[in-house]
Amino acid sequence: MGTDEIRKIGVSTGGGDCPGLNAVIRAVTLTAHNHYGWEVLGIKDSFNGLIWPDQTMPLTPEVVRDILPEGGTILGTTNRGNPFAWEREKNGKAEIVDMSDRVMENFDHLDLDALVVVGGDGTMKIAKGFFDKGMPTVGVPKTIDNDLEATDLTFGFNSAVRTATEALDKLRTTAQSHHRVMIVEMMGREAGWITLHAGFAGEAHIILIPEIPFTLDAVCNKLLQRWESKHKYSLVVVAEGAVPAGGETNVIDRSPDGTVRLGGVAHRLAEVVKERTKLDVRVMVMGHIQRGGSPTEFDRILGTRYGEAVTHMIARGEFGKMVALRGTAILSVDLSEAVGRNKLVYPDGTLVKAARSMGIFFGDE
Amino acid sequence: MGTDEIRKIGVSTGGGDCPGLNAVIRAVTLTAHNHYGWEVLGIKDSFNGLIWPDQTMPLTPEVVRDILPEGGTILGTTNRGNPFAWEREKNGKAEIVDMSDRVMENFDHLDLDALVVVGGDGTMKIAKGFFDKGMPTVGVPKTIDNDLEATDLTFGFNSAVRTATEALDKLRTTAQSHHRVMIVEMMGREAGWITLHAGFAGEAHIILIPEIPFTLDAVCNKLLQRWESKHKYSLVVVAEGAVPAGGETNVIDRSPDGTVRLGGVAHRLAEVVKERTKLDVRVMVMGHIQRGGSPTEFDRILGTRYGEAVTHMIARGEFGKMVALRGTAILSVDLSEAVGRNKLVYPDGTLVKAARSMGIFFGDE
Amino acid sequence: MGTDEIRKIGVSTGGGDCPGLNAVIRAVTLTAHNHYGWEVLGIKDSFNGLIWPDQTMPLTPEVVRDILPEGGTILGTTNRGNPFAWEREKNGKAEIVDMSDRVMENFDHLDLDALVVVGGDGTMKIAKGFFDKGMPTVGVPKTIDNDLEATDLTFGFNSAVRTATEALDKLRTTAQSHHRVMIVEMMGREAGWITLHAGFAGEAHIILIPEIPFTLDAVCNKLLQRWESKHKYSLVVVAEGAVPAGGETNVIDRSPDGTVRLGGVAHRLAEVVKERTKLDVRVMVMGHIQRGGSPTEFDRILGTRYGEAVTHMIARGEFGKMVALRGTAILSVDLSEAVGRNKLVYPDGTLVKAARSMGIFFGDE
Amino acid sequence: MGTDEIRKIGVSTGGGDCPGLNAVIRAVTLTAHNHYGWEVLGIKDSFNGLIWPDQTMPLTPEVVRDILPEGGTILGTTNRGNPFAWEREKNGKAEIVDMSDRVMENFDHLDLDALVVVGGDGTMKIAKGFFDKGMPTVGVPKTIDNDLEATDLTFGFNSAVRTATEALDKLRTTAQSHHRVMIVEMMGREAGWITLHAGFAGEAHIILIPEIPFTLDAVCNKLLQRWESKHKYSLVVVAEGAVPAGGETNVIDRSPDGTVRLGGVAHRLAEVVKERTKLDVRVMVMGHIQRGGSPTEFDRILGTRYGEAVTHMIARGEFGKMVALRGTAILSVDLSEAVGRNKLVYPDGTLVKAARSMGIFFGDE
Repeated sequence: MGTDEIRKIGVSTGGGDCPGLNAVIRAVTLTAHNHYGWEVLGIKDSFNGLIWPDQTMPLTPEVVRDILPEGGTILGTTNRGNPFAWEREKNGKAEIVDMSDRVMENFDHLDLDALVVVGGDGTMKIAKGFFDKGMPTVGVPKTIDNDLEATDLTFGFNSAVRTATEALDKLRTTAQSHHRVMIVEMMGREAGWITLHAGFAGEAHIILIPEIPFTLDAVCNKLLQRWESKHKYSLVVVAEGAVPAGGETNVIDRSPDGTVRLGGVAHRLAEVVKERTKLDVRVMVMGHIQRGGSPTEFDRILGTRYGEAVTHMIARGEFGKMVALRGTAILSVDLSEAVGRNKLVYPDGTLVKAARSMGIFFGDE
Repeated sequence: MGTDEIRKIGVSTGGGDCPGLNAVIRAVTLTAHNHYGWEVLGIKDSFNGLIWPDQTMPLTPEVVRDILPEGGTILGTTNRGNPFAWEREKNGKAEIVDMSDRVMENFDHLDLDALVVVGGDGTMKIAKGFFDKGMPTVGVPKTIDNDLEATDLTFGFNSAVRTATEALDKLRTTAQSHHRVMIVEMMGREAGWITLHAGFAGEAHIILIPEIPFTLDAVCNKLLQRWESKHKYSLVVVAEGAVPAGGETNVIDRSPDGTVRLGGVAHRLAEVVKERTKLDVRVMVMGHIQRGGSPTEFDRILGTRYGEAVTHMIARGEFGKMVALRGTAILSVDLSEAVGRNKLVYPDGTLVKAARSMGIFFGDE
Repeated sequence: MGTDEIRKIGVSTGGGDCPGLNAVIRAVTLTAHNHYGWEVLGIKDSFNGLIWPDQTMPLTPEVVRDILPEGGTILGTTNRGNPFAWEREKNGKAEIVDMSDRVMENFDHLDLDALVVVGGDGTMKIAKGFFDKGMPTVGVPKTIDNDLEATDLTFGFNSAVRTATEALDKLRTTAQSHHRVMIVEMMGREAGWITLHAGFAGEAHIILIPEIPFTLDAVCNKLLQRWESKHKYSLVVVAEGAVPAGGETNVIDRSPDGTVRLGGVAHRLAEVVKERTKLDVRVMVMGHIQRGGSPTEFDRILGTRYGEAVTHMIARGEFGKMVALRGTAILSVDLSEAVGRNKLVYPDGTLVKAARSMGIFFGDE
Repeated sequence: MGTDEIRKIGVSTGGGDCPGLNAVIRAVTLTAHNHYGWEVLGIKDSFNGLIWPDQTMPLTPEVVRDILPEGGTILGTTNRGNPFAWEREKNGKAEIVDMSDRVMENFDHLDLDALVVVGGDGTMKIAKGFFDKGMPTVGVPKTIDNDLEATDLTFGFNSAVRTATEALDKLRTTAQSHHRVMIVEMMGREAGWITLHAGFAGEAHIILIPEIPFTLDAVCNKLLQRWESKHKYSLVVVAEGAVPAGGETNVIDRSPDGTVRLGGVAHRLAEVVKERTKLDVRVMVMGHIQRGGSPTEFDRILGTRYGEAVTHMIARGEFGKMVALRGTAILSVDLSEAVGRNKLVYPDGTLVKAARSMGIFFGDE
């Protein structure tokens, strides 16, 4: 198909939501309309919208007028459901079926000439699958964790760090007034970027991230040491995926009586710290609030630039590719390059070193 | 003692911290210094500072210069420890002793002529006890829950509502994008004021407070009804002290297998809702973040007015009394009047009615 | 007309916009629909919408869904144009005509049974005029300045104070770093409420409001005194209507060479202060930013309560009246009572006194 | 001098203040203390502190504890006074003298072994001058405008953009409600970065920057075109240094009667637009508020990284150099490289192009 024959493109958003998704949707819509005169169709709830009927909405400049400062995605999203391995119940039994042909059919039936897929690792893998089946697909990377090797920065991350830092600014005074240990759990299963940035900017005393294994003894000693100094309170930030070194994993996952501890890492860590230090400990799990709210000006611009660039990629026929930021330039890279390659915090990098110079402790001594 | 003999007064803050405490401390200090030429001594960590040595700090205009916009209390606080019934360990055994004489002695030893006690219900009871023992004591009411019958408004409440409303503004978009039920737990053991105001202003769909018993069936039906309409998501706010009506308390406190459910009401409610509706449910516990952060302009002014008025009360010799806001006037009321009389949300009041007119559901049908 | 015959009501917003107008519009719409089953018609741009054709929009629950947190008014507004004395150009000549009959006709033509008029003093006077002509009219008071005698509080004021206080928090550090005098002009032609509250909460050193005449000498002396102390910077807030005492008005309005000084009071004051003190002075005019932004939770609730209450007033047939807040209750008062009676800051009131106790200077010595 | 002989270093901040200066001061202090065991002396008000006596303050970890989230600089700053060409009055006559020797003497007298100079172009030129005279000097670049060729990003810029964008978010609703043209003046004498970013993220309709000459006709036509569409309001952002093309400069600088127009570009532009379009126009000059407030998490981290890196540069003896960010790495570049090389917005760059794709108008057609 020549790109001059493009008349109508689709957009969908998949995976966990983050601030900036609407910036992408708006930019695709405006660039397609104003620049190329294409129609744009919004596909709802990621690929689900290509499986079920009536799950689309026309995207016009009017529809996207006020969405730039809005969090979330007007198209809806989901982190469940892979058309290539669709879980469903039939006759009371769970089964897995391949729905990808139905998606291809619906794509044709909707007269779409290209599809913009916005999503994370999982969603990009599916997009690659459809590209391999012949669908003209382009991708926009999305991970609030900023842990994608293929691009310097992802939108949503800056907003999440802002929200998390503001929370630390608030928790500090109450921790200080009550001479407490406050343990704050932040997003990051594999990569500690949000926790590191927010902990750094929000002046946490201890930062625990997946990339730097910590020991409970070191953490408890540091907390007792602060208690005995004139600074009787501590702020600890911990990424949801942070784990204590070696055998200590048992300690944090099981109570003394052997039962499994419930809750996330912050709650489990709090229990152990209380047992060992007798300090007054409180927990805050940031959770979904990190995904919410109006995108920062930075994420509004980054999301817009991605959305504009990916639309030009369609016009140039660069399918099977994804936009990526390198320095200040926006390039296109192969979808396959994007998949499964995580960018982790480098424990000896300058950011961690600068944090250490400021006296921040990573629990690793 | 004639009040013209006053030379030095003390200030302490007790109970849970809230935004506006520093406004009171600053106002007492500036009014005492600028208006009366008195010295002011800060007593640390509530009455603990009158039990242990070296737990005081001089308060000068210089010391309080920049504290108005700061959350927490520069004097520290605690919600543990009653000098009249002091818990301690002696020879490995817990015992309860009366330390009130020691407090009286230290008060004299520090050459104090009066004491400003800022605190909640419990702290005011102790202040009353010392007044009865002869200490010239005046009080400033503090409850972030705004549940004190004796005064129209308490500082900290406005700030807490703001923080909680901002959180709802953030959680809305992520709930909406994922078609989820988001259950948000807010402060309020006995009174649902914070939850009601934040839920109202933040457009929650369901508000659950201690004053209005709800049924789980009603809540689940409402959630399913929203799911079946075109609005596939719901925001539920629940005060930590909200309880389902009658026998349902068992359901929420115990899992089907009979074990006790852990966590606060939001987590327990979420489990039941998931079981019954199969909807996608997430929980956010606001917790200490509600106490934190810079006080709103409203709380800065209210705290300042309280601190100024209570200092003038000392000059007029009105001991055993507490400041209170009635309409726009600040009066003094007996400490005893303040104690143990909670102001609850009136289920048939205009605020609840207005919320119902907006379509907000209280789980009570 | 019996109120049981009401089928359709109109709503309009007039005068300067302020945060909370959409809360009123939404509350009227939801209460009318959900509670009474009435249709609601939005009239655009105040009474202009009843003069010109096609200036209305149906208001349904769907239309008002997301407007509570939005600033401004979805109906548009204007502070120009009085139907009883309409200025227009005819054949190149300006003339004033009475358009009130046309408004009455259009009101009937649109099948309206009642009209909710949201607005300030001027708008209420017009509403009263139409009520006297037989239109079933009810009012909701609106003044961002909070200067209406008839009601304790108006929505928008709390939001304006927040915005102005946040600006002071920002300007403080830059003034301090450069040892400058920063003069900040805030809204308030006749009443200094916004300036007083924001100056108080934002720790201005000097507050100048219309109700307390000041002298330029006193202001300049205070600024020099601060310069010579260790606090080399000053924050001055001035209401747009503040005026120096007596003959000094000439000084501030005319340059030494006799020409009229341009700009608002802050710019003129700055010039005089620079001439007399040689200090480094900067000006910030807050202007329209004070009207903007999302309403505070307080204003969202107050606007909603007003909108709900005024709809019930229609149902009760209480026309020619306006809602008013007294303490925590919402009452109805005669429209005529609302008109032309300003609530001013009382120079000897407790708020000004508390501000003085904090060391704030009003320029009046 | 061997760097192992370093015992005491100085820090000063010069030029206009911006958020993040305290992050640098804190990072230098903590790195010097914790890492190297050096003393740190704060020099007040840029180089003035090395001219006058008693203008220094010891910087210890205790002193810098709470300054990271504070705007401004605890050391004070100034954008007046060059020691190499010092303006002073003697016997009623202005004269210019070279005070640089006195600065060198005081530097020695204070036992300083190195000086960290934080500042903009002008300050760096002075630092270079002292380095050439033999002072071991290192620099940290500071420009809120982000217009320094030598480094990818400067701290303060992100905070300024955030403040400016938030203002646009607020002004939008009031402009919309009144169908007005709102002209907002932002910082940027030579470079339009702040205006471009804030206008992009805050959805201005027209962006006017120094790098893209505009014509008044094009601006007025666009405004009238928007007025005639259904979008009756417009947001215009204009950098303080933006100028209309060619002969139009006269029009904007002089009134029809030939007198010089007063005020900044926004006020002058507003007058012309009013004359030509008869639209309702309002002006907001952002001014100093853009410099104020707590630094964003981004600027906190960047300022900290600069401060840490520059301290290590001293340890390595890299004098006469300045830190610079290139990609994610922090390098050192010659002070001379930093001076006088402005980084301007590239009119054909991807950012401007993306803005145009979103429908933003630059006044240049």
